[in-house]
Amino acid sequence: MTVNPIPTRLSSLTLEDLSQTEGMPAILPIGSTEQHGPCLPYCTDATIAEGLALRLAAVLPAVVYPTIQYGYRSNPKSGGGALFPGTIDLSGSTVIALVRDVLLELIADGRRNILIVNAHFENDPFITEGMCLAMEAAGSGANVQCIQTNWWDGLTPETINACFDASDFPGWALEHGGVTETSLMLALAPELVRTERIPSSGLEFVPPAYLRFPLKKGDVPIEGNLSPAVGSTAEKGELILKDAVESIYRACEKEFDAAWPFAIAMHN
Amino acid sequence: MTVNPIPTRLSSLTLEDLSQTEGMPAILPIGSTEQHGPCLPYCTDATIAEGLALRLAAVLPAVVYPTIQYGYRSNPKSGGGALFPGTIDLSGSTVIALVRDVLLELIADGRRNILIVNAHFENDPFITEGMCLAMEAAGSGANVQCIQTNWWDGLTPETINACFDASDFPGWALEHGGVTETSLMLALAPELVRTERIPSSGLEFVPPAYLRFPLKKGDVPIEGNLSPAVGSTAEKGELILKDAVESIYRACEKEFDAAWPFAIAMHN
Amino acid sequence: MTVNPIPTRLSSLTLEDLSQTEGMPAILPIGSTEQHGPCLPYCTDATIAEGLALRLAAVLPAVVYPTIQYGYRSNPKSGGGALFPGTIDLSGSTVIALVRDVLLELIADGRRNILIVNAHFENDPFITEGMCLAMEAAGSGANVQCIQTNWWDGLTPETINACFDASDFPGWALEHGGVTETSLMLALAPELVRTERIPSSGLEFVPPAYLRFPLKKGDVPIEGNLSPAVGSTAEKGELILKDAVESIYRACEKEFDAAWPFAIAMHN
Amino acid sequence: MTVNPIPTRLSSLTLEDLSQTEGMPAILPIGSTEQHGPCLPYCTDATIAEGLALRLAAVLPAVVYPTIQYGYRSNPKSGGGALFPGTIDLSGSTVIALVRDVLLELIADGRRNILIVNAHFENDPFITEGMCLAMEAAGSGANVQCIQTNWWDGLTPETINACFDASDFPGWALEHGGVTETSLMLALAPELVRTERIPSSGLEFVPPAYLRFPLKKGDVPIEGNLSPAVGSTAEKGELILKDAVESIYRACEKEFDAAWPFAIAMHN
Amino acid sequence: MTVNPIPTRLSSLTLEDLSQTEGMPAILPIGSTEQHGPCLPYCTDATIAEGLALRLAAVLPAVVYPTIQYGYRSNPKSGGGALFPGTIDLSGSTVIALVRDVLLELIADGRRNILIVNAHFENDPFITEGMCLAMEAAGSGANVQCIQTNWWDGLTPETINACFDASDFPGWALEHGGVTETSLMLALAPELVRTERIPSSGLEFVPPAYLRFPLKKGDVPIEGNLSPAVGSTAEKGELILKDAVESIYRACEKEFDAAWPFAIAMHN
Amino acid sequence: MTVNPIPTRLSSLTLEDLSQTEGMPAILPIGSTEQHGPCLPYCTDATIAEGLALRLAAVLPAVVYPTIQYGYRSNPKSGGGALFPGTIDLSGSTVIALVRDVLLELIADGRRNILIVNAHFENDPFITEGMCLAMEAAGSGANVQCIQTNWWDGLTPETINACFDASDFPGWALEHGGVTETSLMLALAPELVRTERIPSSGLEFVPPAYLRFPLKKGDVPIEGNLSPAVGSTAEKGELILKDAVESIYRACEKEFDAAWPFAIAMHN
Repeated sequence: MTVNPIPTRLSSLTLEDLSQTEGMPAILPIGSTEQHGPCLPYCTDATIAEGLALRLAAVLPAVVYPTIQYGYRSNPKSGGGALFPGTIDLSGSTVIALVRDVLLELIADGRRNILIVNAHFENDPFITEGMCLAMEAAGSGANVQCIQTNWWDGLTPETINACFDASDFPGWALEHGGVTETSLMLALAPELVRTERIPSSGLEFVPPAYLRFPLKKGDVPIEGNLSPAVGSTAEKGELILKDAVESIYRACEKEFDAAWPFAIAMHN
Repeated sequence: MTVNPIPTRLSSLTLEDLSQTEGMPAILPIGSTEQHGPCLPYCTDATIAEGLALRLAAVLPAVVYPTIQYGYRSNPKSGGGALFPGTIDLSGSTVIALVRDVLLELIADGRRNILIVNAHFENDPFITEGMCLAMEAAGSGANVQCIQTNWWDGLTPETINACFDASDFPGWALEHGGVTETSLMLALAPELVRTERIPSSGLEFVPPAYLRFPLKKGDVPIEGNLSPAVGSTAEKGELILKDAVESIYRACEKEFDAAWPFAIAMHN
Repeated sequence: MTVNPIPTRLSSLTLEDLSQTEGMPAILPIGSTEQHGPCLPYCTDATIAEGLALRLAAVLPAVVYPTIQYGYRSNPKSGGGALFPGTIDLSGSTVIALVRDVLLELIADGRRNILIVNAHFENDPFITEGMCLAMEAAGSGANVQCIQTNWWDGLTPETINACFDASDFPGWALEHGGVTETSLMLALAPELVRTERIPSSGLEFVPPAYLRFPLKKGDVPIEGNLSPAVGSTAEKGELILKDAVESIYRACEKEFDAAWPFAIAMHN
Repeated sequence: MTVNPIPTRLSSLTLEDLSQTEGMPAILPIGSTEQHGPCLPYCTDATIAEGLALRLAAVLPAVVYPTIQYGYRSNPKSGGGALFPGTIDLSGSTVIALVRDVLLELIADGRRNILIVNAHFENDPFITEGMCLAMEAAGSGANVQCIQTNWWDGLTPETINACFDASDFPGWALEHGGVTETSLMLALAPELVRTERIPSSGLEFVPPAYLRFPLKKGDVPIEGNLSPAVGSTAEKGELILKDAVESIYRACEKEFDAAWPFAIAMHN
Repeated sequence: MTVNPIPTRLSSLTLEDLSQTEGMPAILPIGSTEQHGPCLPYCTDATIAEGLALRLAAVLPAVVYPTIQYGYRSNPKSGGGALFPGTIDLSGSTVIALVRDVLLELIADGRRNILIVNAHFENDPFITEGMCLAMEAAGSGANVQCIQTNWWDGLTPETINACFDASDFPGWALEHGGVTETSLMLALAPELVRTERIPSSGLEFVPPAYLRFPLKKGDVPIEGNLSPAVGSTAEKGELILKDAVESIYRACEKEFDAAWPFAIAMHN
Repeated sequence: MTVNPIPTRLSSLTLEDLSQTEGMPAILPIGSTEQHGPCLPYCTDATIAEGLALRLAAVLPAVVYPTIQYGYRSNPKSGGGALFPGTIDLSGSTVIALVRDVLLELIADGRRNILIVNAHFENDPFITEGMCLAMEAAGSGANVQCIQTNWWDGLTPETINACFDASDFPGWALEHGGVTETSLMLALAPELVRTERIPSSGLEFVPPAYLRFPLKKGDVPIEGNLSPAVGSTAEKGELILKDAVESIYRACEKEFDAAWPFAIAMHN
């Protein structure tokens, strides 16, 4: 892994600058606008997706496209659900269409290697559907490799164990506003974390084994997070980021096509 | 829990018979048409969803609507994926629309308590979306309680441990053609199980920590199942069914409205 | 016409079994969940579509895919309409999407000869639309022949006359819960027919020459059928099935491509 | 039936004129752009729908909205099909959306009595779907009565017999470019009819008992009509129009609400 | 520019006539059904689009397809908005689908040069979207040139100045029921213009610099037009038509492919 | 106008913080990802929309929701078009759905006063459509006021004249990468502007009076901007912002409901 010497955010490039990114993979970060309990802001998922994308872009190298900042409906079993104010719930068809359209544009621009980095649990299957539709529409002749991953997908057991030294790992669905997200935010955007509200002991929320509609207030804890942020530190956040970068880097190395190592070499 | 004395499949009722089910919850089983490895047939998910629904209908009591037999795209990480022939992959928008339409019809018919029993892992978020859309369209005045559950959602650790006495529990996503599905089929439709192909030891498939498109043959084991059926028995299947029925019965008892216990009482 | 020696329901095949059906036509039966008057159950259309499909599969030979059990909105002029409880009315876009998706999957699996057997009057134009969209999406290079037929389409005048020896033929739109459907059910699933309710003389329902919305109770006879079941017998049902099988067999013989007789020969 | 003293085409009214039509039913004519064989133009269905609508408007009284001039895909079994050049085939979802949108606008404008007059066989079920969706969206509080009819729906046996004095009635699906449409055009727009091409004897086209895709040239007669125009006269056209007007007038009389006779009286 | 010797409306052609138009461009006029103030009828946009299309067809030469008579929602800032009765507002998706479908049919019929002539301000971006989707669906291999224009797009400053000799040019968005549309209608369909209501001095409506929803009566002048018709004459209408024809003719000359001049030559 | 003392970005708020914004208007900025010529980055529209929104939020006061960073297809006549790499073109239905969903969520959260600030020319009609659909779905009982504006809509002639002291005003459609956008970026994000590339004299691009598809390279200047950035300064940018804030503030003052001034007073 080497360091990408050129700016990696498409947002800040000009048309002329873009030519320097030719042949590079494109990274599409996807987050949400969703309450994340007492310590974390509404942009938590977007910040994590974008932060991880930028770290990956520095080593792949790659160019990072603007983060999708609105995501699929928050689910009470993984994000608190739609009843919390401020949470913006896109419908499934909208998320699917958005992902499909953006991917098709990346492909039309000649990107052959595309990496989707997601940070909002509920987005996952709708991103997959958008990706399926885009690949179908592009056709097999497009010769595109598209990787979809969540930041938690490739973490090692060691990293997970290290994060949960002060609490039990509740499963990724419940890691909403908990140790891992809080630690990631402490590493990526500490100014947005209310550290004074990090509890010293954990709540014990066990969601029901089913989903019941209509949603009712009281179905989830009124604080909005589903697991406690107890023991969160920037160091844990950095550990997660390092592990995720390595895991996803290896995935890209394995799956992306021949033009990609060439692009790396060029910048060595 | 008492036993429902009247026929519970809508399919075999006449219009006149239907009036006997007034006030009863409706159960909608949802499966798939998907290969399930060397031992199990394409109808595995549909058979399990319907089998569990009928057992629930006997005790709630409730009326079982026809099983949805085609489901959302098989995912290589939970069902083998779209490259296996015979697997029929509906797009997300189709599953959403189908669930939405059927639910709205149940509501229009006056069903106030609706239970969705799913047996195909990939269906889950698209059922949720269809349910959200139906509830929105029905409006809060419809006064409907809708429960969405997968057969594995409420199983106790004891049941899971009992099933995995001969192999490790790989997580529900990988339980595709494995011990639990094979045991359930041995309990519900043994004539459709190729018991002679149940292996004596397990394969060790670990899917990658990401999804890569386009799919390629070789991404998943060519046998089609993602975990071994080793140690499957009809007894384990019965154990799962009993546990699922109890868990879902309690959910209905808690969430369904006042008219429902009355309906039970009526048949006592 | 020879008899297919291997199992013909995709549902009960395993992945490995499927390879034995390579080159065979696929049959997709489409029914509905709709009240059918005092004698017949809600699954009438699904049962007839599936029953005819299985008979065709035995002689073509062919493989039968799971029956679509929910269909397009019941029309008061051909099915009684949406006001009867228990009738599940899918919207047009849902039926179109469902047919389109399933057909595209059959094509993706290599089926070159596809037969759709419909038994619900109202489905017909929406199946056609789904087929159009699938054929467009597949492209002319797919080299697929797709036949859409209703069980009544190819019946000879002799068969129709034989069925209506005790009543007048009211036209196919009104044959809802009447002689032909009741006879077919007596042949295919007699245990589901309330023979004691078959009337000895016919009702005389003449629908208006227009459709008026909103629907009102009283627009159609409260019994739910649009023509009388008088004179229904299993023999008439067998006669219809035999005639339909012959008619559709000849259609397949004429329209399906060269690989198809080869498939027959292979099993002779 | 009295005669409407004011202009009846919305098209030629100004905003101020419109107030004179308050309380009147609205008529929406729907046609197609479809070849109609050697004698008739592409606008045949649109001309017939509009012509009948204007005659109805004169007696109801009512206001006629602009004719929808593009319709659902021509079917080889009822219109010759998509392979004939010049025929413009809208997809099902487009026709549904168009009908839905226009009806909702009529309802929003306060029209409580709406009459759809269709002249293109294939449109029928898609108009019904659009009407269902509009009525659902408007809600039961909208208090709207909507009648959907085809010009042939209410014709008496006497009229049909009178039309087919020189040929056999082939059924409405095949009356494409045949006696009835040619006679109607001779009554409504004789300058558009190539009377010199009206044959003296009939072709004998019997379509197959199924629909096969892809369509192939040769599936239908290359002349484009499905039944012979032999014996067409303007008198027969007038007979049909008179019969249709009477039948539809009676339907409106029966189904439209109390405000409607008042509107008639007002103009007497 | 030469004169087209054959009939140019597809509507009045028969199938056989159509072959004479082979190789000719197709023109699709698009209008609306929208109130146009005290002087003009609801069909104003449709009449202008069709009138200009026919003049173009006479000189290109080309064949004119039926006018789309319903358009996108009237905007208070350019058409008065949805609150005026009689205005029929199609939703965006419906206009897009309609344009897409018709264009794809023109392409399927072999039209390689297509001209869309729009006369309803609000339609413009939705026509563009429909055109984009049709071109994508047709694929680059279709080798189609499609021109989208509004009648006002190519007018010279001289023409605009000549029209506004008695009032100020308010910009095209506000030219709703004003000098140019009234003059065009005086040239194309004078019998539909209420000349007695043409004011001798102008109203002074300045819409707000934003759009506010919900719309309220009083947002726009109750007369329904947004600029005064003062000084409208048939001569100005002819001037606009002449200028528009020349401008669009030159566009076609430049953009349409080689087969097109040949077609002209053929008719010289 | 007073200054909002609390944080105004939803992104950086926690759930608990949100309660402080109760009763405040919500502002939704909408931009694009589109090349903007040699001087400006791809995030130009998003940066301007967000920058203006934050200034408005400080004085209204209001809470700013995350900026929509992908917009409708770039048009060659107003943005250079789809052929420039890096420009991400969403389809119309996606933009409509995105705007609709977000607005419905704001309404569901109790926002009664909503301001949409757009900075991408092509977005405008699709935002309107999304707003229409959201208002329809919310129903009149929602009692919501929604204002849609573009930053250029309410600028005074004085401001426009001041900006174009070194070049001619080409109309807003062509102000893509020109004086006003460059000046705004110099005021809002000078570090992203390549000032060294600001030309000393203007290019003279006059787009054709029509849109022709397919797009071709060479249709627009290869530099990507449609008007020259000559004479751009941060001072002009500040002037535009000040004028836009005043204009939009007055719009909100006029259109938003009674609760809104109260909210202002509360924070004085």
